[in-house]
Amino acid sequence: MKLLHRIMVGLIILGVGAVASAQTADTAADGVRAADAAWLKVYSAKDLNKSVAFFDDQGSLLSPNDPIATGKAAISKLIASDFSFGDLTWQVDKAGVSKSGELGYTSGKYKFSFKDPSGKPATDNGKYLTVWKKQTDGSWKVLFNMFNTDLPPS
Amino acid sequence: MKLLHRIMVGLIILGVGAVASAQTADTAADGVRAADAAWLKVYSAKDLNKSVAFFDDQGSLLSPNDPIATGKAAISKLIASDFSFGDLTWQVDKAGVSKSGELGYTSGKYKFSFKDPSGKPATDNGKYLTVWKKQTDGSWKVLFNMFNTDLPPS
Repeated sequence: MKLLHRIMVGLIILGVGAVASAQTADTAADGVRAADAAWLKVYSAKDLNKSVAFFDDQGSLLSPNDPIATGKAAISKLIASDFSFGDLTWQVDKAGVSKSGELGYTSGKYKFSFKDPSGKPATDNGKYLTVWKKQTDGSWKVLFNMFNTDLPPS
Repeated sequence: MKLLHRIMVGLIILGVGAVASAQTADTAADGVRAADAAWLKVYSAKDLNKSVAFFDDQGSLLSPNDPIATGKAAISKLIASDFSFGDLTWQVDKAGVSKSGELGYTSGKYKFSFKDPSGKPATDNGKYLTVWKKQTDGSWKVLFNMFNTDLPPS
């Protein structure tokens, strides 16, 4: 019975360890999911300053039909143009964070509603990928954000 | 003199520590840079099996004008279509790896040479972002690869 008891205790410890490990991973990814959601909130409200502030100082926006924009001045121009053109929303699908907890990613789908040249409402559907870097103050900032359309070429 | 000596030794240790830390970061990023270069080699040679094998089993290809392709079967279809359409090359610009060493990224520019519908040689220039995950065997595999064009809408 003693041996069985020891095995049982061992299995319980292993089980608790596995649950703890899974929880750590979930909690870590929750950080970038929360950052992704907080970014969407200020982006949907078209708050330019707060939207740009989500980028790391070395961050880049990799937007279709434009060269890579690195740094807040270049990024601000692109986002301002985006705000004037239509309404963006997105939904995270996958998220992950490194074991060390300072590098992460979110990815999902976006929907961009705008008016076509004739004034008719139109929608672009696509996907995005964001690489996040944790700052020294604990906040997550965008190192890279990239998106492209799912629609066939026009 | 003794205090000065101690301060000097302290500064030297700090200096060596800073150099060692910078070297660690560089060496870590070298891993994803090498993986990026090895992938480019088999991609340029249009080796479909080896190109697809660079993806993690849960990997996704986020290609313009198509929904997210996850898993090797869906990715293989997209890459095969790419191979038949033209010649791709790319150059890494930025690379980084988490402190824990299992999550990394590469980003840079691509050039895609193809023939337009009239048969004339044409070139698309754009950018890419790849998220890499180190496997249990120590190799780096692609968790996400995404690209889009720098050119204005056609």
